[in-house]
Amino acid sequence: MDIEFIRNIGHELFKKISTVRPQLNKTSLGQGASGDITYPVDRLVEDMIIDFFEKEGINVNIITEEKGVKTIDANLLTLIIDPIDGSKNAISGIPFFSTSIAIADGKTLKSLQLGYIINLVNGDEFWTKRGEGAFFNGKKIKTDKKSKPLIIGFEASNPYIAIKNILPLFKMANRVRCFGSTALDLAYLSIGALSIFVTPTPSRIFDFSAGILIAKESEATITDIKGNSIEELPIAFDTKTTLVVSASELLHKKVLELIDRE
Amino acid sequence: MDIEFIRNIGHELFKKISTVRPQLNKTSLGQGASGDITYPVDRLVEDMIIDFFEKEGINVNIITEEKGVKTIDANLLTLIIDPIDGSKNAISGIPFFSTSIAIADGKTLKSLQLGYIINLVNGDEFWTKRGEGAFFNGKKIKTDKKSKPLIIGFEASNPYIAIKNILPLFKMANRVRCFGSTALDLAYLSIGALSIFVTPTPSRIFDFSAGILIAKESEATITDIKGNSIEELPIAFDTKTTLVVSASELLHKKVLELIDRE
Repeated sequence: MDIEFIRNIGHELFKKISTVRPQLNKTSLGQGASGDITYPVDRLVEDMIIDFFEKEGINVNIITEEKGVKTIDANLLTLIIDPIDGSKNAISGIPFFSTSIAIADGKTLKSLQLGYIINLVNGDEFWTKRGEGAFFNGKKIKTDKKSKPLIIGFEASNPYIAIKNILPLFKMANRVRCFGSTALDLAYLSIGALSIFVTPTPSRIFDFSAGILIAKESEATITDIKGNSIEELPIAFDTKTTLVVSASELLHKKVLELIDRE
Repeated sequence: MDIEFIRNIGHELFKKISTVRPQLNKTSLGQGASGDITYPVDRLVEDMIIDFFEKEGINVNIITEEKGVKTIDANLLTLIIDPIDGSKNAISGIPFFSTSIAIADGKTLKSLQLGYIINLVNGDEFWTKRGEGAFFNGKKIKTDKKSKPLIIGFEASNPYIAIKNILPLFKMANRVRCFGSTALDLAYLSIGALSIFVTPTPSRIFDFSAGILIAKESEATITDIKGNSIEELPIAFDTKTTLVVSASELLHKKVLELIDRE
């Protein structure tokens, strides 16, 4: 799979969303396959991405937030799409949301082969191919292992319980951030803007797949919140996991110790 | 004071920042008057704003984050500037920061006369003049009093203690957000994108002045975290206060009850 083909899709999405933004609306189209509410912009972007693959005649299995799963052949690549990561921001007018596209060539997360995230507000692009490093707008990126101030990003779908559970972790933070887009959290961690990212409530495969491959290729350390590897989790529609992603192994160890102490 | 004069400044800042963004750098210029680190971009924007006033021959008292205070005459208007609200985002590469400009015609916060905020990433503009309502990119705005999901924004300079103190509040939240720019939190609350905004650690006069006037003119309810009015606080460089800002009075009452219960 050529990264330029995926980037071209990203550019078309960015152009489209730039023109429709003032008309983004909150009219729910009902629940998508994931159980989340589908908004017109979710469907628009998902349809555009799938169309690009179909027009090129590229056969892939598909896992998407809105439509669910389309399995053609277990031997084909699997395309994992979150059309709008940060839908709540997008439809309410907050300019912080993205499209996340990942491709896997096997059956578990360690087979993620390509990751691509585009910030649909300003066009920032992040991409990686397994083993080739990660890139931000064309420049090779690494996490910032000695970042000061230390900024912890998190996402939580059940804020009271989730934040209570990770509260001890905030002892090491100079600042926290909760932007509402897991894909962008992982992307900006990969360029050194966040030191740590945590999701105490399980994140879904569409939200994190591109982001964790970009983070890994930027030298981040990644486990679930118990410190377990997530590499053997299946490439499947209902795969969910908590996440701890750190700029360095040393930070990661400290994070797990603080969470565990609770 | 003409809002179009201030908007024109905003447009020039947006143009300038769009071109220099890739070069924004972390080189500290030392501590500004407020005690925060000054970055080149803070100084660049502050100088540009003050130049506009000087070139027009408009005499004002000035309160700014970086340079501090310049009092010319107690009878003049006072200009309150946060050149970059969200500096940490800006210099680390996260596209979420703004310029905040307020003007007061008296000695306390109730004399705030004009508020202007521009998102320097996508050019979103928010403005108000006292008694004339608030506007977002030219359209009159109101808070969303029945917003679902209920999203609580917060900022905290001392995350562990601050978040611990407001944790009960998160019981009423479907989601939380912490974007790192108080001005933009207040601006996006004013268009209905957030239901509640809280700063358990004191926010400074440059950060909140434009935002609270915009929020007030959008029908938000505003007090400090104890429920006290902030209207009588002085227009002064070292004025700081905690904030609770809610889309409606009813919500505000619930927020204060939940915080108080702790």
